[in-house]
Amino acid sequence: MDPVRFSQQLAFITEIDKLKQVLRQSWLVDASRQETDAEHSWHIAVMALLFKEYANVKSVDLFKVVQMLLIHDIVEIDAGDTFIYDKWQNEDKEVREQEAAQRLFGLLPQDQEHEFQQLWEEFEAQASPEAKFARALDSLQPLILAYMNGGCSWQTHGIHRSQVIDSKQHMDDGSSELWQKTQQLLQQAVEKGILED
Amino acid sequence: MDPVRFSQQLAFITEIDKLKQVLRQSWLVDASRQETDAEHSWHIAVMALLFKEYANVKSVDLFKVVQMLLIHDIVEIDAGDTFIYDKWQNEDKEVREQEAAQRLFGLLPQDQEHEFQQLWEEFEAQASPEAKFARALDSLQPLILAYMNGGCSWQTHGIHRSQVIDSKQHMDDGSSELWQKTQQLLQQAVEKGILED
Repeated sequence: MDPVRFSQQLAFITEIDKLKQVLRQSWLVDASRQETDAEHSWHIAVMALLFKEYANVKSVDLFKVVQMLLIHDIVEIDAGDTFIYDKWQNEDKEVREQEAAQRLFGLLPQDQEHEFQQLWEEFEAQASPEAKFARALDSLQPLILAYMNGGCSWQTHGIHRSQVIDSKQHMDDGSSELWQKTQQLLQQAVEKGILED
Repeated sequence: MDPVRFSQQLAFITEIDKLKQVLRQSWLVDASRQETDAEHSWHIAVMALLFKEYANVKSVDLFKVVQMLLIHDIVEIDAGDTFIYDKWQNEDKEVREQEAAQRLFGLLPQDQEHEFQQLWEEFEAQASPEAKFARALDSLQPLILAYMNGGCSWQTHGIHRSQVIDSKQHMDDGSSELWQKTQQLLQQAVEKGILED
């Protein structure tokens, strides 16, 4: 074992512990608190294992999807969680996240920095079936939480169904089946009175 | 999409949200609070991506390792987190976790129940290089947290170095390199006065 290499890896592993302190706008199913980015990343990685059958491209490389999902939010340690419906915050999101990726992945040995940076860029660029399917899952999970917890985040921010549909319709690129199901869930949420039409 | 199948998958995904509320004995790096099982599962899955090179069996199936790490703690939703140094709690751990696996994985469609149950049993039985490497990472992560946060959980429970070594030496079966490094970290922890000799 190369001790310098190990200490770089250890520095990264220690630094990403901070993802457990980045709060998202999503509330847990029982609505007791907001979830953390680390918890979200775990949840969507498990979802990927179960939902592969709904990917538009059936031959999708599932391990790559899972790797993307595990690391895609790490940049938020520096850049913060950007609420999808907040236009002002979204304006400089890309720059903030690029800088964060550079600093955070830069803690790793060069080969692993490159690997993580590539995975993250592929996800951000939505340039592959894996990236598209990963993003569909990333978008679906907060909807499931909101549907189950009575629409906490929708109500807090006065979100309407059309806003959800506008911001999530890219799901169709990764999984038309999950996008169709999502629209049904949103319809049910409106009928239940937990989402404004 | 088969709507019954999807609703079973959704029930499971909703149920495992509870893993975000199972607190571990490990404290975050900044010692501000205990981490949750979901956060721990995410952290060790990322560690697997970085530490593959230290596995005893270099040809280890890394995706299987990651899958095991993502799901191995789900049983703790019902069975609770069992502190490794608590002999009384550890006595009936196996029975509690078997029952939990049956109920929780039982929410899934049968093929996926079988898949998750198999992965979990392989991890528990330590019957493969993947299971052994996964367990080594699962054991290493709380040590990294404790080393970095000044030994929170060691001090709270009055843990001595020999207890850590006894309970973690199985790491050697999955990764002799990481086990060697762990012993060095423990030596440094004793020297720093954050772990009793």
